[in-house]
Amino acid sequence: MILEAAVQEGDEVVLGPILQREGEILTRSIGGEVPLLPPSNFGVVDRGIYRSGFPSEENFPFLKALNVRSIVYLCPEPYPKVNAEFVRSQGIRLFQFGIEGSRESFVTVSNRTIMEALRVLLDIRNHPILIHCKRGKHRTGCLVGCFRKLQNWCLSSMHEEYIKFASPKIRPSDMRFIEMFDVSHMMDCVLGIIYRYHGFGHQAPRLVYQKA
Amino acid sequence: MILEAAVQEGDEVVLGPILQREGEILTRSIGGEVPLLPPSNFGVVDRGIYRSGFPSEENFPFLKALNVRSIVYLCPEPYPKVNAEFVRSQGIRLFQFGIEGSRESFVTVSNRTIMEALRVLLDIRNHPILIHCKRGKHRTGCLVGCFRKLQNWCLSSMHEEYIKFASPKIRPSDMRFIEMFDVSHMMDCVLGIIYRYHGFGHQAPRLVYQKA
Repeated sequence: MILEAAVQEGDEVVLGPILQREGEILTRSIGGEVPLLPPSNFGVVDRGIYRSGFPSEENFPFLKALNVRSIVYLCPEPYPKVNAEFVRSQGIRLFQFGIEGSRESFVTVSNRTIMEALRVLLDIRNHPILIHCKRGKHRTGCLVGCFRKLQNWCLSSMHEEYIKFASPKIRPSDMRFIEMFDVSHMMDCVLGIIYRYHGFGHQAPRLVYQKA
Repeated sequence: MILEAAVQEGDEVVLGPILQREGEILTRSIGGEVPLLPPSNFGVVDRGIYRSGFPSEENFPFLKALNVRSIVYLCPEPYPKVNAEFVRSQGIRLFQFGIEGSRESFVTVSNRTIMEALRVLLDIRNHPILIHCKRGKHRTGCLVGCFRKLQNWCLSSMHEEYIKFASPKIRPSDMRFIEMFDVSHMMDCVLGIIYRYHGFGHQAPRLVYQKA
């Protein structure tokens, strides 16, 4: 999120920590600012959609800066107390989809779980949204892969992205799961509401959202 | 870019390739759609900012879908004819910053070049913007690292991201370059216009853009 609006040349915009004195611009020194620590394996998936490993307390200022509104949490374990307290205090909606992480094969995950998670992900009322599991590699990688499938990416690009985040612990079963996931299932999924999402970027934000 | 606006439950939105017949929704079959092929090593840096390796002709439909308005090209070689024709036909602005890629050490790159590139990158009038070099690893990785520095990321997170995209060809000299890059130089850079960008996410889009 770079800027809310274009700034025209000649505009004077002096914000927050900036002091102007005798033609000199002073800022809080770079060294004086506390650096933000993104969660491990952090990445931007798309506008308003982020992915990562499990956020710890030291990542909370970063998540605040992201202004995260919702979290898709893909582990079956209850949220740790400190994380639960953080999401409560920030008014963040937590969507938990408990997927076992210890299994080599991802085949135990139902298409239905992924579709439910995708449904949460596609709804911009939940954005900005963070997807995470424990390491941000396998469960998160599968969900993001299926999301790319909705975006009509070719398989090799989905796999390239999966590998980037899962390395060096790549699971061929996850890559098969992404390949086999049938996005046409999204046509008759949950609650009689049909989502269908194509493309990527400014030109192609198309959603079908219709009562059955 | 998921959706331009929130769709309320109950809204009926049926777009593009969707046909409705006797309560049945038919779409162009997934198999019938030509999948989009992102350039190699593609990634989303932030809203409206993308990174990749060198785009080839087969990536052009994807770049069209992204609606790319500008390209930051970090190699000294002239743009190939087919790419030059593509950017011309699409009205894409090409910003070339010729950085030698064959050198192990990144020390030959001046802070000034990176600052000029950052200046282009930060200006949302150039968005959506794609940064690319040849492989999207070293030159692109250095520029994105410096961008993260402006966003006040901690060094270990910048390096984690650099490694993700440069693996397995990590260059310690690039990582040092990112560490040593002094963002305070952005305070007295080009054309008497001062940019200063903090933070990340919805809450923190702050820019100082002021005539000297």
